[in-house]
Amino acid sequence: MTAEQAYDIWVQPAPGRTVVTHDGETILGTAHMNTNRPGPGAHVATASFMVAANARGRGVGGALVGDALDWARGRGYAGMQFNAVAASNTSAVELYERHGFTIVGTVPGAFEHPTQGRVGLHVMYAEL
Amino acid sequence: MTAEQAYDIWVQPAPGRTVVTHDGETILGTAHMNTNRPGPGAHVATASFMVAANARGRGVGGALVGDALDWARGRGYAGMQFNAVAASNTSAVELYERHGFTIVGTVPGAFEHPTQGRVGLHVMYAEL
Repeated sequence: MTAEQAYDIWVQPAPGRTVVTHDGETILGTAHMNTNRPGPGAHVATASFMVAANARGRGVGGALVGDALDWARGRGYAGMQFNAVAASNTSAVELYERHGFTIVGTVPGAFEHPTQGRVGLHVMYAEL
Repeated sequence: MTAEQAYDIWVQPAPGRTVVTHDGETILGTAHMNTNRPGPGAHVATASFMVAANARGRGVGGALVGDALDWARGRGYAGMQFNAVAASNTSAVELYERHGFTIVGTVPGAFEHPTQGRVGLHVMYAEL
């Protein structure tokens, strides 16, 4: 996709928030966060994260998750929900669990992994 | 909301599909259906349903669910996922279960019910 398409997909309109972590001029990772659902679901937040492949193992993901949780607590959300965490991404699942998330359920085969075939998609939740 | 706002929220752009059931000039219910997620989740469909309050008990919901499943099978989807079914809506949960859906998990307190307070939101899934 083009940079403009990626920007439109990733950068959240207000009241959502999009952040980056950086080392000088180099972007190490990014997160966006927002309300998960409108109306009667609007007391639950959501967030998504990306860490640059060559920045793994430096605590970037943990910093982004912690920042998103701080944002959600500061806004008064009752919890944060991740709607679709690939079960194959065990490092992300473990990271989220360390930050208080639990796997609420797993939709079987809902993610087409490029090399592993269809794997489950976890729904994860943390009460705030 | 205005009719235009409701239309924009409910009527799905292609390849999604929106249907109504009617008795002469009277709309009894409506459904929309689409791909649940882009990219590596695009083999799973989703759908939502509304039945008019004064049309309950006439099989409208079952007809809409059956039609959505037929559409998804015809399109070759591997399954259908409902992302947020209020746990308090037991008649809907039972209807979906009769059509082959199971509760994958429940996000606690994620739906602010107008009289019951916060109730869970089920994620439900049926393999096709």
